[in-house]
Amino acid sequence: MYKNNPIDSELMLLDRDISIPKTQKAFDATILREAVSVAVEKLSKNISNTSLRGLQLVQPSRLEELVEEYTKRTHKDAKEDISLKIFEEIIDLYVATGIPVYSTGYMGRQFSGVVPIAGLTDLLTSMMSQPSSFYESAQLPSIVEKVIANEFGSLLGWKKDTYDVVTTSGGSLANITALLTARNCKVPNFYNLHSSSEGIPAVAMSSDVHYSVKRAVGILGIGEDQIVSLPVNTKGQICMSQAESKLAEAEAKGLSVFCLVASAGTTPVGAIDLLNDLAELCKRKNYWLHVDGAHAGSFLVSDKLRGKLQGIELADSFTLDAHKTMFLPASCTLLFYKNKEAAQQTFYKKASYIFERDSNNLDGGEKSFECTKRPMIMNLWIPWVLYGREFFAQKLEELCETTKQAYYKLKLEKDFYPLHKPEANILCFRYSPENSNVIKVKDLQLAIRDIIKEDGKFFISKVEIEGETALRVVFMNHEITMTHFNELLTEIKRIGEDLVSNNKKLH
Amino acid sequence: MYKNNPIDSELMLLDRDISIPKTQKAFDATILREAVSVAVEKLSKNISNTSLRGLQLVQPSRLEELVEEYTKRTHKDAKEDISLKIFEEIIDLYVATGIPVYSTGYMGRQFSGVVPIAGLTDLLTSMMSQPSSFYESAQLPSIVEKVIANEFGSLLGWKKDTYDVVTTSGGSLANITALLTARNCKVPNFYNLHSSSEGIPAVAMSSDVHYSVKRAVGILGIGEDQIVSLPVNTKGQICMSQAESKLAEAEAKGLSVFCLVASAGTTPVGAIDLLNDLAELCKRKNYWLHVDGAHAGSFLVSDKLRGKLQGIELADSFTLDAHKTMFLPASCTLLFYKNKEAAQQTFYKKASYIFERDSNNLDGGEKSFECTKRPMIMNLWIPWVLYGREFFAQKLEELCETTKQAYYKLKLEKDFYPLHKPEANILCFRYSPENSNVIKVKDLQLAIRDIIKEDGKFFISKVEIEGETALRVVFMNHEITMTHFNELLTEIKRIGEDLVSNNKKLH
Repeated sequence: MYKNNPIDSELMLLDRDISIPKTQKAFDATILREAVSVAVEKLSKNISNTSLRGLQLVQPSRLEELVEEYTKRTHKDAKEDISLKIFEEIIDLYVATGIPVYSTGYMGRQFSGVVPIAGLTDLLTSMMSQPSSFYESAQLPSIVEKVIANEFGSLLGWKKDTYDVVTTSGGSLANITALLTARNCKVPNFYNLHSSSEGIPAVAMSSDVHYSVKRAVGILGIGEDQIVSLPVNTKGQICMSQAESKLAEAEAKGLSVFCLVASAGTTPVGAIDLLNDLAELCKRKNYWLHVDGAHAGSFLVSDKLRGKLQGIELADSFTLDAHKTMFLPASCTLLFYKNKEAAQQTFYKKASYIFERDSNNLDGGEKSFECTKRPMIMNLWIPWVLYGREFFAQKLEELCETTKQAYYKLKLEKDFYPLHKPEANILCFRYSPENSNVIKVKDLQLAIRDIIKEDGKFFISKVEIEGETALRVVFMNHEITMTHFNELLTEIKRIGEDLVSNNKKLH
Repeated sequence: MYKNNPIDSELMLLDRDISIPKTQKAFDATILREAVSVAVEKLSKNISNTSLRGLQLVQPSRLEELVEEYTKRTHKDAKEDISLKIFEEIIDLYVATGIPVYSTGYMGRQFSGVVPIAGLTDLLTSMMSQPSSFYESAQLPSIVEKVIANEFGSLLGWKKDTYDVVTTSGGSLANITALLTARNCKVPNFYNLHSSSEGIPAVAMSSDVHYSVKRAVGILGIGEDQIVSLPVNTKGQICMSQAESKLAEAEAKGLSVFCLVASAGTTPVGAIDLLNDLAELCKRKNYWLHVDGAHAGSFLVSDKLRGKLQGIELADSFTLDAHKTMFLPASCTLLFYKNKEAAQQTFYKKASYIFERDSNNLDGGEKSFECTKRPMIMNLWIPWVLYGREFFAQKLEELCETTKQAYYKLKLEKDFYPLHKPEANILCFRYSPENSNVIKVKDLQLAIRDIIKEDGKFFISKVEIEGETALRVVFMNHEITMTHFNELLTEIKRIGEDLVSNNKKLH
């Protein structure tokens, strides 16, 4: 194979002028300098605008027309100067249609406006084009991954060089990666044979676990029917006594549970499972314990909040989304393995053109789904160096403190009912005045949320709790105080009273 | 559950001053403005430096010391001004240890220096924090995905609104996603039950397929033992006659093949499979046809190169890495589905706090592994608007043309042997002078590559072909001409002659 072909007529090409036209212009540094000032001016304005505002939701068809118009413009000659005016217009459109994360009215999702220096790091990374799957092509990021791992390792009390941390593109992927590792470690023949000698492999998980974990069981060929769902208690944590009986039931049905997935910061309410108790249970039963700490795993960096995660150091693996509660650009996910050997079990295959030598366990491509991968760790490390761990800790503490205050505020308010005492920066509640029995509580919450959305001063979310809709706020913004939350409550009351008194038709 | 807890002593918190210290400083726009000028100055210098240079490979332990030193600096007070000097130093280190993608000596990997305007788009995206999994939180990117899909759809001759395109974090993940879709469509019970009623599910693939495809079979619970490997011909393409017999063999052994994976641009040599023939075979046998076009899928944008992909429009799915051959920051991967209904089969689960309504098939989170996902499509769309499709086409055509010229040059050169006629911008060859029989050809190539690496003028790669090492160049740089390739050959000859005449000990 691959033998030489006979020399053919195309050889004549060699006689041609070898200087072919080039497309250098688009790669010229001048464009970078000119366009960056446009971008930064717009971004600065957006960051600095903390006024109360919600989301400008645009009809998809209207936006499509606009996008098509831009796309159809013909720029047939790449040598033509790029139009910075168009670039400016697009930035305006991007900002106008985006979630106003820098607004103090933004309380809706688990991401925040990012630390600007991390945004700039993304520019650096993009322009250096360093895929971080192996040491050779990402020397600095590979080492930074190791050093950041050590920073967290010492906060966890883990012994140096015994654990491993893998970066990957988002918490969902981290959860799937961890479950794959668990499957390969606990059901060793599955990777090659698609079969198990001992029972039907199954995975136990909190009923409030993130949807990516449920998906993972289907993806990995275990089958979603083999999910053992563990009920949660009043705090949204896996109920330990019910867990034991559910697991016994599953075993009696012939299921062979090999992994239990807990949460540190559930998506609905931010609950943190009883990790110490679960670790004890998993050790006793020889389960792999994975903790989805996408949301609250970052509490590790705070001396005040770390205690909430007690037991996470006993987990076999856990996920941490630094792009959520460390205020970095998406995605920057860390997947922690208590035993570094386990991380090597996730995948088995090697490719000759890549995995040339073992560079001290620095070739991350052997441990993550991605081959080409952004060196996302740089987004975390540069602010870490410039501002210190204390910066992240302080902001997190402020957010959790504000959430707790909001909870107590709701408890004092007539007609408002908080649905849980917050462990993190997520708070779910209902507005339900005594005279509201003409309207279903569920419909009322939805109607309020929709009107708030339309009014455009606040951005909040909704959630189903026990099959009923509730309002949900997530405190993420660095400028948010109780003043803004109080304004939100005033708004909800005004809307709610209007709906109830007019007994308006709710959709 | 989630009932109100009795009011406890913490209620006293409400009496405290609710204005808590904030960490605004790090989020201040001033930092963005000041730091960006530092970053852009450094980046401009790096982009403009096209001089011949290879990779400065640093001892991991040395780099680790340096990184630790930076990390240990304490910045306990977030209010302290950030040190731009440290930021500058880190950028210098990042550039110095990175692959010099803007150098004309860089011919080693399948990524290039990126279009600066796309790097800036990454800055915009980061600072706007728009996860693109659902319409609400990424209105513009969601629509842009649709419009870009239509641009490609019309190049493919696909009927509008019948197909779908999903963005995801890298070609590996796209391949796994496609295989998962194939599994769910062709082996419908597998997702829930982990079993199949008809035979043992199996996947056929080129022996030269990317390692992520082989991995996928293990990941998805099909089992790597169920891979049917199809031999390649002298051009590195799946050999059609051998494919038929291999598949018959597999079926005779009880395997039930449901999917065949071909390549458009194999990693070793850039070969493009006979897609028309494979599509016919797959149709006849009711297989899902997936094409890993991570490397050469982008030929679609060029009127001159598109013909090389004939038949790709018949595939059920294919992968295209715009961060490879469209010169964009990693990652920007497009996964194409011929039938849009298929894309809906990849995953089944929904989460109440996210998937609220069907916004015209715009909620990408239902179709990709990621929940939080960068709106990577913006990196492609903005240059597409500013420079036109022709920009990408022109650069690709230039690269392929230069590669072809390099091939003919090698054929004329005594002592050089190209191993294949290039279909794309990848070229593999050996230096093997007649008097070299004192040294194994394999060892000679490795020794040459290592010396080139150390000399630091060029960055090339190596590859195993038929179990023997060869040299490999990938033309990716927008400034590269035959002049640079000729310089490389001179260098190789000098090194090779020296090695052969001195019969140096090779490691």
